Amino acid sequence: MKKKNIVILGSSGSIGEAALEVVRQHKDKLRVVGLSVRGNTKALARHIEEFRPLVAVIGADADASVILRRARQLGCRVGRGREGLCRLAAQQGVDTVLVAIAGSEAIFPLLAALRAAKTVALANKESIVMGGDLLMREARRHGARILPIDSEQSAIFQCLEGRRVDEVERVYLTASGGALYDLTKSDLYDVPRKRVLAHPRWKMGPKITVDSATLMNKGLEVIEARCLFGLPLEKIGVVIHRQALVHSMVAFQDGSVLAQMGVTDMKLPIQYALSYPRRWANGRLRLDPVACGALTFEEPDTRRFPCLELAYEAARRGGPAPAVMNAANEVAVAAFLEGRLKFGDIPRVIEKVLACGWPRQVARLEDIFEIDAAARQSAQRWTQALKKKRRPR
Amino acid sequence: MKKKNIVILGSSGSIGEAALEVVRQHKDKLRVVGLSVRGNTKALARHIEEFRPLVAVIGADADASVILRRARQLGCRVGRGREGLCRLAAQQGVDTVLVAIAGSEAIFPLLAALRAAKTVALANKESIVMGGDLLMREARRHGARILPIDSEQSAIFQCLEGRRVDEVERVYLTASGGALYDLTKSDLYDVPRKRVLAHPRWKMGPKITVDSATLMNKGLEVIEARCLFGLPLEKIGVVIHRQALVHSMVAFQDGSVLAQMGVTDMKLPIQYALSYPRRWANGRLRLDPVACGALTFEEPDTRRFPCLELAYEAARRGGPAPAVMNAANEVAVAAFLEGRLKFGDIPRVIEKVLACGWPRQVARLEDIFEIDAAARQSAQRWTQALKKKRRPR
Repeated sequence: MKKKNIVILGSSGSIGEAALEVVRQHKDKLRVVGLSVRGNTKALARHIEEFRPLVAVIGADADASVILRRARQLGCRVGRGREGLCRLAAQQGVDTVLVAIAGSEAIFPLLAALRAAKTVALANKESIVMGGDLLMREARRHGARILPIDSEQSAIFQCLEGRRVDEVERVYLTASGGALYDLTKSDLYDVPRKRVLAHPRWKMGPKITVDSATLMNKGLEVIEARCLFGLPLEKIGVVIHRQALVHSMVAFQDGSVLAQMGVTDMKLPIQYALSYPRRWANGRLRLDPVACGALTFEEPDTRRFPCLELAYEAARRGGPAPAVMNAANEVAVAAFLEGRLKFGDIPRVIEKVLACGWPRQVARLEDIFEIDAAARQSAQRWTQALKKKRRPR
Repeated sequence: MKKKNIVILGSSGSIGEAALEVVRQHKDKLRVVGLSVRGNTKALARHIEEFRPLVAVIGADADASVILRRARQLGCRVGRGREGLCRLAAQQGVDTVLVAIAGSEAIFPLLAALRAAKTVALANKESIVMGGDLLMREARRHGARILPIDSEQSAIFQCLEGRRVDEVERVYLTASGGALYDLTKSDLYDVPRKRVLAHPRWKMGPKITVDSATLMNKGLEVIEARCLFGLPLEKIGVVIHRQALVHSMVAFQDGSVLAQMGVTDMKLPIQYALSYPRRWANGRLRLDPVACGALTFEEPDTRRFPCLELAYEAARRGGPAPAVMNAANEVAVAAFLEGRLKFGDIPRVIEKVLACGWPRQVARLEDIFEIDAAARQSAQRWTQALKKKRRPR
């Protein structure tokens, strides 16, 4: 079998590292031809040593001194910044581009990969939330394919595979509930960062762990699923599933429901995106239905976790609203992680920003980025304002 | 859309009646062109009146007087016995033959349908258990297709659809546990018929309800799944799932598990077999994951329910052993239903009969029927012998 040539953008993050582990387990089937990090050039140096990629890209401001000499010795070109990322994502000979960059910056290499008709294994949510319609249009136009890496989207993708989307009645995205699902609304307001970051099921980066605790992560997934699978919003539901073993479910119009399950390890959906359409043997990640205990599903409590409802609201409004919401959320979460905002004020910032008068429609990616920047400014102002008040609701 | 012409063999049984209900709900897509009953000509008379089939077949000894005149008025030919069944199953213009006849007699019309390259919606287990390899060979040879109606086999079929069987690591057949799963071994021995027949989840005929309580039903399904999906026995497992909402699961070699769920209503898998490869909208049979409560999976207790292990044993031996086991089970269950055998002696009869020296291989269907007859005689003798002893183990 010919090896698949893959590029991993964001190789030092938790998804990137898990993807490299998948490559280690399937060296006979995968070859890493490109890697990127934003600032963690130490990790990149290790990855270059181990995987010998042809190209490595680092952030525009990153310290290249750690890797430059050794990279040259190993015949690895070093690129920089957005331009370097886009060139790598579109490079000839690359089969699959795994996009594991965090935040909205991912949209540029993603677009480049789609326009170069690559298969994209996508872990980044923000890009789809911001420019989903546009990105899907480009993918269709160039015959590119997006394979989701997110465990929930991968589950829906697996349940839908070989089936007709027009026969879907409802999709149930499962949410573990995050670290705080048992707290009361008043306890949630000023919950300490450490507690928020202790996710009971998934080991992830800090931004997504906070999003998981606010349920905004699920809100972003609702918007993402609508785009990736072309489903109307009314058909996308969320259920709390504390065990995080059922990664999502698809109900068809005849009453039959398919659920995808697996242990809570991102290597599973990552491997599927890389092995697709095949499934590669993998002796390690086994779900034993008898050992996994009772599986439960609950209605999400949007009173305690208003971010989920805000995401539905943004999705209903459409146009740039999801991008505005996403920008406000990124700013608010960063402020929370830096100790400048209470946990309970995250949804308040988003609500305030969403309520400003945003345009109804956007036609070009540039417009979205302009709105994104404005929404971030607005979110910063509201973060400041709420910091001054600091009164619990 | 052209209507599908269907034949329902065994229209007065619980599966047959449910199938007719599916037809009522999809009159625009389905047309009943043939029906059969063994003895219940009263039900058949009603069905002829309602569905106006072209052919109706009744058992060789059935009283035809109830239907003959009216059938003639409605232009419905009346056939009889095995020959009539086989002719109907192979009739030109028939798209799908739904085989809902109970017991081994189903093998003859099933074979006729396969040889006429029909699509067969199969509810009968015994035929596959007795002559599975032979039947599958005939299906392949004639380009016929078997779509399972059993909820568990339908679940596996749905999970496997569009996927590669060689990537399957394990199939989990779910068993509700039947009416008696909480009883101790000594309580099970002499449990009254009425209690056995009160199945907590599925409303079914008496034979299959007893099989469900002994777990022999699951044993038959293990043998059936092996045949229908071409899976090695080691890959087929059984888990007790009391809620009977997950109808089976398929684990793939990458660690991903697909589960099919739905309300416990046979109309769901029946409709799927009739609508396949499409799924028809059906507003009634909805599974609400939030309302369905906790889902649990347990290891089956083969000490209290030895029939399951006997089925695995018969499957391992291969050749005519599954047919022998099935024959012994049919005799034992009939004796139990007639009050001639204790519940706890059902597995004993099967074990004794299986232990007799049976040939290792059979080449022809005729041989299987000879062995089947001999196994039945042996089972009758053991039933008599155990009745005389009547001592609890």
